[in-house]
Amino acid sequence: MIDKGVRTVRVGVVGCGYWGPKLIRNFHSIPGSELSMVADLRQDRLDHIKGLYPSVETTTSYEALLDSSVEAVAIATPVSRHFEMARQALLANKHVLVEKPLTQNTEYANALIDLARERKRILMVGHTFEYNPAVEYLKSLIESGELGRVYYVNATRVNLGIFQKDINVIWDLAPHDVSILLYLLGLKPDQISARGSAYVQPGIEDVAYVTLNFPNGIMADVRVSWLDPCKIRRITVVGSKKMVVYDDVDPNEKIRIYDKGVDAPPYSDTMEQFRLSYRYGDITTPAISNAEPLAIETSHFLECIRSGKTPRSDGAVGRDVVRILEAAQRSLRNGGSSEHLAN
Amino acid sequence: MIDKGVRTVRVGVVGCGYWGPKLIRNFHSIPGSELSMVADLRQDRLDHIKGLYPSVETTTSYEALLDSSVEAVAIATPVSRHFEMARQALLANKHVLVEKPLTQNTEYANALIDLARERKRILMVGHTFEYNPAVEYLKSLIESGELGRVYYVNATRVNLGIFQKDINVIWDLAPHDVSILLYLLGLKPDQISARGSAYVQPGIEDVAYVTLNFPNGIMADVRVSWLDPCKIRRITVVGSKKMVVYDDVDPNEKIRIYDKGVDAPPYSDTMEQFRLSYRYGDITTPAISNAEPLAIETSHFLECIRSGKTPRSDGAVGRDVVRILEAAQRSLRNGGSSEHLAN
Amino acid sequence: MIDKGVRTVRVGVVGCGYWGPKLIRNFHSIPGSELSMVADLRQDRLDHIKGLYPSVETTTSYEALLDSSVEAVAIATPVSRHFEMARQALLANKHVLVEKPLTQNTEYANALIDLARERKRILMVGHTFEYNPAVEYLKSLIESGELGRVYYVNATRVNLGIFQKDINVIWDLAPHDVSILLYLLGLKPDQISARGSAYVQPGIEDVAYVTLNFPNGIMADVRVSWLDPCKIRRITVVGSKKMVVYDDVDPNEKIRIYDKGVDAPPYSDTMEQFRLSYRYGDITTPAISNAEPLAIETSHFLECIRSGKTPRSDGAVGRDVVRILEAAQRSLRNGGSSEHLAN
Amino acid sequence: MIDKGVRTVRVGVVGCGYWGPKLIRNFHSIPGSELSMVADLRQDRLDHIKGLYPSVETTTSYEALLDSSVEAVAIATPVSRHFEMARQALLANKHVLVEKPLTQNTEYANALIDLARERKRILMVGHTFEYNPAVEYLKSLIESGELGRVYYVNATRVNLGIFQKDINVIWDLAPHDVSILLYLLGLKPDQISARGSAYVQPGIEDVAYVTLNFPNGIMADVRVSWLDPCKIRRITVVGSKKMVVYDDVDPNEKIRIYDKGVDAPPYSDTMEQFRLSYRYGDITTPAISNAEPLAIETSHFLECIRSGKTPRSDGAVGRDVVRILEAAQRSLRNGGSSEHLAN
Repeated sequence: MIDKGVRTVRVGVVGCGYWGPKLIRNFHSIPGSELSMVADLRQDRLDHIKGLYPSVETTTSYEALLDSSVEAVAIATPVSRHFEMARQALLANKHVLVEKPLTQNTEYANALIDLARERKRILMVGHTFEYNPAVEYLKSLIESGELGRVYYVNATRVNLGIFQKDINVIWDLAPHDVSILLYLLGLKPDQISARGSAYVQPGIEDVAYVTLNFPNGIMADVRVSWLDPCKIRRITVVGSKKMVVYDDVDPNEKIRIYDKGVDAPPYSDTMEQFRLSYRYGDITTPAISNAEPLAIETSHFLECIRSGKTPRSDGAVGRDVVRILEAAQRSLRNGGSSEHLAN
Repeated sequence: MIDKGVRTVRVGVVGCGYWGPKLIRNFHSIPGSELSMVADLRQDRLDHIKGLYPSVETTTSYEALLDSSVEAVAIATPVSRHFEMARQALLANKHVLVEKPLTQNTEYANALIDLARERKRILMVGHTFEYNPAVEYLKSLIESGELGRVYYVNATRVNLGIFQKDINVIWDLAPHDVSILLYLLGLKPDQISARGSAYVQPGIEDVAYVTLNFPNGIMADVRVSWLDPCKIRRITVVGSKKMVVYDDVDPNEKIRIYDKGVDAPPYSDTMEQFRLSYRYGDITTPAISNAEPLAIETSHFLECIRSGKTPRSDGAVGRDVVRILEAAQRSLRNGGSSEHLAN
Repeated sequence: MIDKGVRTVRVGVVGCGYWGPKLIRNFHSIPGSELSMVADLRQDRLDHIKGLYPSVETTTSYEALLDSSVEAVAIATPVSRHFEMARQALLANKHVLVEKPLTQNTEYANALIDLARERKRILMVGHTFEYNPAVEYLKSLIESGELGRVYYVNATRVNLGIFQKDINVIWDLAPHDVSILLYLLGLKPDQISARGSAYVQPGIEDVAYVTLNFPNGIMADVRVSWLDPCKIRRITVVGSKKMVVYDDVDPNEKIRIYDKGVDAPPYSDTMEQFRLSYRYGDITTPAISNAEPLAIETSHFLECIRSGKTPRSDGAVGRDVVRILEAAQRSLRNGGSSEHLAN
Repeated sequence: MIDKGVRTVRVGVVGCGYWGPKLIRNFHSIPGSELSMVADLRQDRLDHIKGLYPSVETTTSYEALLDSSVEAVAIATPVSRHFEMARQALLANKHVLVEKPLTQNTEYANALIDLARERKRILMVGHTFEYNPAVEYLKSLIESGELGRVYYVNATRVNLGIFQKDINVIWDLAPHDVSILLYLLGLKPDQISARGSAYVQPGIEDVAYVTLNFPNGIMADVRVSWLDPCKIRRITVVGSKKMVVYDDVDPNEKIRIYDKGVDAPPYSDTMEQFRLSYRYGDITTPAISNAEPLAIETSHFLECIRSGKTPRSDGAVGRDVVRILEAAQRSLRNGGSSEHLAN
């Protein structure tokens, strides 16, 4: 699949917390990549990385990384640092992969998009799920028309989770579901509302619900929580012809297609005659590649650098997600108000 | 458990659709009950009942049932008929068990409560889940303090369901969850909001989400749908000490208690020192009686008739549920507005 | 499906223990059946039945039942009584449905077969699973060739079970799996062996394993236990092309077809070149009728009485199962010896 | 937990097929270990390892590895090479960790045991599951008496598996279950029998069943298969007081303890009075460490080297497992004969 004869890109990674090491592992092992430098403020983390990958240079100075010969920088630092670090990297003429969410606000996202265009550099956001083979399969199902008209989507992403100190659960977990929704539907929502509560840390919501109203009457609901006893990552897409459940936690059966539905007859003279007919057909679990989404994502990033093509999850998509999160945040503050998005 | 030496109560049932036959089966088989008459507008349904229970009298006339010697009437007709039929039964000095929801609106519910008090008759609403041993167990867990402070509740009740023509999915399914919540928490919500969409039948929501804000910051979210490929009936209660999942669909393990949680230290000098500690302890599945909730409910109804005591799910509880459904309905019509409930 | 215009057959049932009431319920409710008499030695059981079906005559005398006008008798008594009671019924010119296993030994089974032929009466054994829509579906899969050549079958039937006092777990549970195997494969085994142990009641095995070697190298293994914490009823059929799991405990997905397998290339020059290729294809869960197997079985019995056709699970099949159980029992006594069956 | 101040042991690994890379990863990352050399016949595999661990020396010559300064050698080559390679390593005064099964036959195993004793070197076999926290927990449950008397054990280890060319499924998969059984019960079996069939490769059984009879009437049955659509690794231990299921495939709930059982009363005058009473109590899922068993095993190996203490899975345990596999193999060839083991 991946041509091993490709030009090698030198990559630097900044941030060795939860996600950084996964990027490091991938940039170390995928073809056409040379992981040359890793930066973090904490020396102990750098020592750990050095132990695993002795050939990699490490530094506590982000400037040193930007001054090095790396062509591309992957940023896996706290969200509050994304904008400034990505800006510096673009100013240093590096291609940039930023972890999700792209930035803290739309303004910053737009600034990065403009700067990347100006500097002719790739700006990509790490919406990993857009590179998940199960999500790609689900998108192909929707586009083929096999599900019929999409009615609604329900998404749940909960766990006894890693609490963040600077962002709430919406900013932490919902970027996954929002980026999946935008990718699957190929649409942007008109309206957003959100409700949530903060139980463990005052002022930082650990449980939240986001409703997105898309064109064509498609409703999507996202439940996110850091406070749930079970790890659930589940998306249900209900169409007029078929229904699909995507269960990311199931190691073997991520996608299940239900040939189930309700048919209303084309017309009926009186309400009394109105009859619904239910279909209970087969359930199919397609064989899905178990390739690691992050390996696909990082390879895609390098491929875009080489070819100049626009990444699937480019700055514009990253900005759209941020705009939706901002609207959800406003709704949360306004007691669940319905926030309109001009598209 | 049940004393077989009790006085026998003669019972009539009206309505032989989906739920009626279950009431009929129970009033036919529980001790101290004599199922003497069944009414329905459709003769074919009555014939079917007669085939199963040859000793039972059947009639297409509700008046005939009210004129008969039955002491108690169980009403399992469409919601729009509840008020009028319950009123007539009370006026005929019958004790009344009405299926949920009690009535179409709060005013009707209050009228029935007043009439029952005046006539000194039992008015009970069929909130079956209040008689479910798993729900009772869950309530005892909460009351014992084992869960700590209750943070929030998440409830899901979805299926490829029986569509109703006169009521939407909130009025059809949410009464279960709302009555469970009131029973479990012993509190009434201050605020309600709801969102939903109608896909199969215009104007009749088949998918909906209801948020209830209770005192003490307890948030409860209820998801109901007639359009889901999987049958899910699941309630998660998250407390500060433990978390519980009640899965009504699981035949063997309805309640699972997770000794999991997050502890924040009592104080910390700086935000940097702030640390959360996670507990991942045992999971316990208590042995729960598999007695049929409807058998317990119908026995409770007869016991209240004999003893004069107030039913667990009396008219007042039925009215509270209706008031919440009304508020949810208003919110649904107002685009998800937050509806305040004066308690 | 079932013509309601058929001649009604008058049926008597003897035995109101665990299984009898299920037969009674079905003979009471299926079309073309009149449940006219029920016999049992215990009056309290008869009273219970009378309470449920007031129109049915009850008796503690089997002779009275045989003297009555019933055309057919269903026998649900302990195994040790099957032969004598079935013999008497046939001598009284009744058609007979005997619960599984047909008799305690092959000799008795052959005697019943001869008597039924002589008296021109239907002799059927209650191998319920042969009438289970999931088993029928599985048989159609095998016969269509979709699975390729059947390699082997693994069957597990365990629970914390109802212990029998007169028979061990092989005679109690294995008749189900053996009758399913004979039905699915359309073959009889050449060799049988069995191993087991008695833990709770001395001399009565509560845990056992039976191996059946069928022609064409097909191996079938059956695990039965009254001493297992989980209820498992699961049959795996592995074919050269596809594999199937039939999980009788799953309410929604009884059959799952795995398009999985291993292909060896037609030839290879050296062992080094030998390569196996794995196929990991889709999993399909076909929609299966959820009709009650016992309703189908009892209807089939009556249909055979009316038409004179041979039942699917006739005396010969019942005898074949008994012969296999006898061989398994011999092997159990002989320390797991391989017992040959002349076919 | 592990003291980082320990003396570092230089380790070499031979064999980079399926299992070798896991050993390599662990010897590279556990404290007190220096992975200094890796040997394999295939240069491409060595290149792959070199890519992941640039500091490690690689060689196609086992002699070179034995001539190097490594103190310890881990052998992950095909079984047929175990004896000769372990012998050479011991002769070169290296400590040796051999993958399971230790050797092809008991004679070889005894020769290695003698040689290790003579050379005063550690000989350990890679029975990974003896170092699995869930197995350790299960052993502590049995030893504490919480399960009561152990009645029987049922083990299933099936998958659509990696077929071996030189050994059948018993030699490939059963070492896991046999070593678990010896470890859990602290007993050796008196008798062994086995049945199996070869479907994909002539003469190499891909499906097999092994029965082990232990002292005190404990029966253990092991089902292994390379030809099953589902990955199952499940061990059920049934005791007189409680029952346990160990499901190695479940990521979160590996051990489930069922407070279930059957009690026979101490005595009864007549068989008629004999009553069994069932207990259906709670189910408990204890929190189990998710430490990697192989990390524990490799650390244990190094600790034994440093301290001179005998490994949990020493040569003698490795030999016992081989002796049981030999007996199973004999039984397989003799049509399921019962093979006695003199202990």
